[in-house]
Amino acid sequence: MFKAVISGAKNFKKVIDAASNLLIEICFEVNEERVKAIAMDPDHVALVSIDIPKEAFDEYEADVHSIGVDLEAFKKIMNMAKAKDKLILELDEEKDKLNVVFKGAMTRKFALALYDVSSLDLQVPDIEYPNEILIKAGPFVDALKGANLVSDWATLKVEDGKFIVYAKGDLNESETVFEEDSESIISMNIGEDAKSTFYLEYLRDMTKAASSGDILKIYLGSDMPVKVEYDVAGANLTFLLAPRIES
Amino acid sequence: MFKAVISGAKNFKKVIDAASNLLIEICFEVNEERVKAIAMDPDHVALVSIDIPKEAFDEYEADVHSIGVDLEAFKKIMNMAKAKDKLILELDEEKDKLNVVFKGAMTRKFALALYDVSSLDLQVPDIEYPNEILIKAGPFVDALKGANLVSDWATLKVEDGKFIVYAKGDLNESETVFEEDSESIISMNIGEDAKSTFYLEYLRDMTKAASSGDILKIYLGSDMPVKVEYDVAGANLTFLLAPRIES
Amino acid sequence: MFKAVISGAKNFKKVIDAASNLLIEICFEVNEERVKAIAMDPDHVALVSIDIPKEAFDEYEADVHSIGVDLEAFKKIMNMAKAKDKLILELDEEKDKLNVVFKGAMTRKFALALYDVSSLDLQVPDIEYPNEILIKAGPFVDALKGANLVSDWATLKVEDGKFIVYAKGDLNESETVFEEDSESIISMNIGEDAKSTFYLEYLRDMTKAASSGDILKIYLGSDMPVKVEYDVAGANLTFLLAPRIES
Repeated sequence: MFKAVISGAKNFKKVIDAASNLLIEICFEVNEERVKAIAMDPDHVALVSIDIPKEAFDEYEADVHSIGVDLEAFKKIMNMAKAKDKLILELDEEKDKLNVVFKGAMTRKFALALYDVSSLDLQVPDIEYPNEILIKAGPFVDALKGANLVSDWATLKVEDGKFIVYAKGDLNESETVFEEDSESIISMNIGEDAKSTFYLEYLRDMTKAASSGDILKIYLGSDMPVKVEYDVAGANLTFLLAPRIES
Repeated sequence: MFKAVISGAKNFKKVIDAASNLLIEICFEVNEERVKAIAMDPDHVALVSIDIPKEAFDEYEADVHSIGVDLEAFKKIMNMAKAKDKLILELDEEKDKLNVVFKGAMTRKFALALYDVSSLDLQVPDIEYPNEILIKAGPFVDALKGANLVSDWATLKVEDGKFIVYAKGDLNESETVFEEDSESIISMNIGEDAKSTFYLEYLRDMTKAASSGDILKIYLGSDMPVKVEYDVAGANLTFLLAPRIES
Repeated sequence: MFKAVISGAKNFKKVIDAASNLLIEICFEVNEERVKAIAMDPDHVALVSIDIPKEAFDEYEADVHSIGVDLEAFKKIMNMAKAKDKLILELDEEKDKLNVVFKGAMTRKFALALYDVSSLDLQVPDIEYPNEILIKAGPFVDALKGANLVSDWATLKVEDGKFIVYAKGDLNESETVFEEDSESIISMNIGEDAKSTFYLEYLRDMTKAASSGDILKIYLGSDMPVKVEYDVAGANLTFLLAPRIES
């Protein structure tokens, strides 16, 4: 069995949004302790990991199950959530559906078809990073938008103790500099100068589920995948994005 | 002559919106007592009836006239209404126009061309319904949206004393249940279980002019047209929609 | 050198918006006293003049320079401005760029490519107008929208001491009347009746940078270009639009 209840349906919506920006389908591996999912985007450039401990739910009861769903359909259903709705997720093993129930002034029940999503045995690789930056999501997203004005690529840099988002187009350039004492920065743990370039659309998709005040942990090295981590509604979201190989 | 003045131009806008969602043109039959219009949508699936007694206006003076207008043009003009505008509708028999005048910080006058709209001698049929549900428009519209996620059709049901909006797509299902004590329900007058299926786009068009807190009267039987009635700005709006014939 | 600092980045954005609605590129002529630009739209129907005295800036230092930029790119960069950002404009003569820097919680720097914009020796012609109307931008724009419902052209009229925006389409008509004592009118200095017809898209572009409460000075004659002037963030904007030649 699998049944999980969460009082803030709108918050859980963000978790699904985060996944649906990069993935088409997902397989949630549930067990007595947690709901987990790891997947790569269709282009195999980004890795998405979702980890929701049972403590994130108001009620939680589960055996071991693999629950594969279409994220576009799940997202549309989650869009129906009202601010005060309670959300109930329940596996209907007989009908092979995931019931998504919103309880508020009325009870709305959606039965979501299950898919046989191939759950590759992926793991978030355990990489040592020279730099760790804790930054508010809002200003970081603004920096990405600025970069996007002039290019489809952004270079994330650590230089002279500053964290820099840089982009260079054919004509124009964009550079956002975060100094350590900026009010956008929570902390910077700098080991060495570093520089990697990423496709902006992925960087933006990875940060879309974060609210402006949410805190992103960005792990950055030179020509290494960037790791971005944040918490949404008690769920841990981790994204890994491969850098552009400079030729 | 025909001259009618209403202080809430924005409210009257809703009446025109309600009609324009389903109809292309309309013929208002005015007389000393009221403004009336009955028409069927171009596909002859839905019947729209508008009845505005003279009491809904601040000033009202009229002989017998048929005033046919293009609803798209009328709607665009009504969109110009400001919150505090007074609306004056006046027939200009000489120029064969309906003058639509907004009086506020400035006076804006639109002269709307009259059409010779064939006014069939329609009537809202006097059907006896086994069930009458009074429900807030907002939650009912939410239920329709939920149904629309999985299908183009929604089944309205009365079952075990509950009012249910149900839809089944190829993969997923949606079901919204209103119990009698739900805060969305004003009252339920249940005679017998009933069930009819309707095209969602029409159901949604029929309810578009209602504000979230407005109260809809829904009359439902089995494989019968559904009747939806509500008041907007002193005008009575009645919609009748034919069910899908289950083969 | 050219360096100018302004505390309200968002306000300066309006100046660029105003220009970019009608022009593709612009050449700012800067000197010790001011930033000026005069240009005609690509169809040579409208003249745009921008005049920003150094007093409009918090800091200002400049020699004589011609700074030609692409307005679409400049506008997109200005869209990045946050409410509390300080804006620094600085000519980088070495790299041949205009640096556009936003200073707030972070520092965002854009380097905007310079163009060799042919700066024709244009001047706002010194025409005597019989009528001068000072009107709030909001109601005037509403009148233009009303006209736009029925036609692509609007006639601006002074008649019997009233200022009128009139349009006549194939079927419908629109007329907005501003009397001298209307709360939309600041003052009317009427010399004689006048009437000129203009292409609405230009009239709307000319007024887009004005906020609803901003005051427009409209100079109107018969079959003469209309002149519209207003101030945005200490900058004077002047627009001249050629009338339709009635045949």
